[in-house]
Amino acid sequence: MKVIPIVALTLGLLATAAGATEPTWRALPARAPEPASNPSTPAKVELGKMLFFDPRFSETGTVSCASCHNVMEGGDDHRPVSIGVHGQKGGRSAPTVWNAAFLSAQFWDGRAATLEDQAKGPVVNPVEMGMKDLPAAMDRIRRIDGYRPHFTDAFGAGDVVTIENAAKALAAYERTLITPGSAYDRYAAGEHSALSPKQLSGLRAFASVGCAACHQGPNFSGPELPGGTPFLMKFPTFTSSPYVASYNLAADQGRFESTGRDADRHLWRVPTLRNLVYTAPYMHNGSVKTLPDAVRVMASAQLNRTLSDAEVTDIVAFLEALTGPFPDQMMPRLPPTPGDLLL
Amino acid sequence: MKVIPIVALTLGLLATAAGATEPTWRALPARAPEPASNPSTPAKVELGKMLFFDPRFSETGTVSCASCHNVMEGGDDHRPVSIGVHGQKGGRSAPTVWNAAFLSAQFWDGRAATLEDQAKGPVVNPVEMGMKDLPAAMDRIRRIDGYRPHFTDAFGAGDVVTIENAAKALAAYERTLITPGSAYDRYAAGEHSALSPKQLSGLRAFASVGCAACHQGPNFSGPELPGGTPFLMKFPTFTSSPYVASYNLAADQGRFESTGRDADRHLWRVPTLRNLVYTAPYMHNGSVKTLPDAVRVMASAQLNRTLSDAEVTDIVAFLEALTGPFPDQMMPRLPPTPGDLLL
Repeated sequence: MKVIPIVALTLGLLATAAGATEPTWRALPARAPEPASNPSTPAKVELGKMLFFDPRFSETGTVSCASCHNVMEGGDDHRPVSIGVHGQKGGRSAPTVWNAAFLSAQFWDGRAATLEDQAKGPVVNPVEMGMKDLPAAMDRIRRIDGYRPHFTDAFGAGDVVTIENAAKALAAYERTLITPGSAYDRYAAGEHSALSPKQLSGLRAFASVGCAACHQGPNFSGPELPGGTPFLMKFPTFTSSPYVASYNLAADQGRFESTGRDADRHLWRVPTLRNLVYTAPYMHNGSVKTLPDAVRVMASAQLNRTLSDAEVTDIVAFLEALTGPFPDQMMPRLPPTPGDLLL
Repeated sequence: MKVIPIVALTLGLLATAAGATEPTWRALPARAPEPASNPSTPAKVELGKMLFFDPRFSETGTVSCASCHNVMEGGDDHRPVSIGVHGQKGGRSAPTVWNAAFLSAQFWDGRAATLEDQAKGPVVNPVEMGMKDLPAAMDRIRRIDGYRPHFTDAFGAGDVVTIENAAKALAAYERTLITPGSAYDRYAAGEHSALSPKQLSGLRAFASVGCAACHQGPNFSGPELPGGTPFLMKFPTFTSSPYVASYNLAADQGRFESTGRDADRHLWRVPTLRNLVYTAPYMHNGSVKTLPDAVRVMASAQLNRTLSDAEVTDIVAFLEALTGPFPDQMMPRLPPTPGDLLL
């Protein structure tokens, strides 16, 4: 995985220093990008949805991807940090799975290059799904006979019930979890009345204050970088912000925690701002409860700005225009369990 | 709640003693019965589905009705006993919610008269959803603003966000969780080719061995008794069965545990046999892993019979004919969470 933290950081600061030139407002594409190695098919998407909702390949049989990424709501779990097997708490707030397909790298620190890679992480994280290793997880899936025809439909004959194919199916499903068509997207597509006057004020404030320097592009998660290249920023940038202490924003050193490289201290992948209405509480540690407070914290810690109440409410109104619409989804049908799977 | 354990028990034993006269095979009705006090409406069903899938009124925000009653699979949770908040284990195996609407009383011991009453139990069970009390659970729902219009749609204007209405909505949703149209139902409706010769042998064995004495009626859970009157049987009846010790079947004293009445020792509500393919492991303690073993255990402990392998495989083939079809379901959309709901 190539990383370009220095370039990205410079880009962000330059844009801010230049007074945040008016960005080009672009709508979210109707389809997420797919890697050539994993073209989406309906069979793959359906299998991926089954796996996404299946708690049986967590150690206790109680935690699925959907447990912490609830796609019936905001694609996260409305908790500061998630709870995995045996009541254990995670270290960071679950990021939303909605529109993750538009990110150039996954996890809060961008350590997974693709959705396919990301899918294998939580299964074997001891405080998340808690499986001993990936072969043990696949053994669970193989012992559920009813999965085999779905793998065959998606990947053909032969030895196809593999972790690589399970990850491909999950990624294909996640590429359907996108929300083009929000009020903002309709505005960006030329429907000028789609945003209220207050939301338009918010859009202008979002740009002029400097939010758009990092939260740019149709997904508000940065420029379109090559797959596997995370768009990283330092957070907090202004450590003198009073919020850094009050919300404990610097305790977790971000990408450094997984790479151990000094240059990665406090670097984080810039998250999407879509569907924030649904993803409280905010920040990597889930410490900020409301959207207005999240706006104040970011302005202070990243831009050294104290916003007026009017700026905050306008920006929040704009962020609310980045909500949904969420696609209708049928529930998957999961195949039956052999009685000794979880004893 | 009226109970008629003695009558029921006698009825069961008489039928067995008489050599199990050929039962009338009846198909499951296309609709579940509804109490006059809670007629189903689409708005009520939709609200009930939202509540059923919402983990936010468990203490930790991680356990919903669907966690232990997974309607994407068998309506239970494929574990011997369930895991609730803080990793705590329950005392009995989660019964399936599929076709619970056809039972005359709820829970393994029939202690809840209606689906409406049952719905209030797990929310405040300390090892299940763990809320302090029902008002605390309703406070959670009231603080999720987006629920109010759904309660209004279902129950009209005024102070309608109440526990009674939440329970009514949940019950209305559960009355849609039924599986008429199985191979057996088509057979019972006159389509004689719907069962294979082996399944027909199994049907005859099911009757002649005596299973149908208790597992009678279209839901295979006993006669149609007035709502609130559980169809109770003693289990195990033949305590000399070697399975009683090997599967620890007599440790839990059933209805006695909730009533404290001597007459209720080892009385259990007769469960449905529909969708057993999906509900392993079996028995109130989830101790029996496979369906053939469950058939052997029941024949031994309830009828003092040791079945031949051919009888077992035939009866299992018949039980497999009681599977599905499961209705297609759209996922509900849950309203967003205020950021301080679960801190």
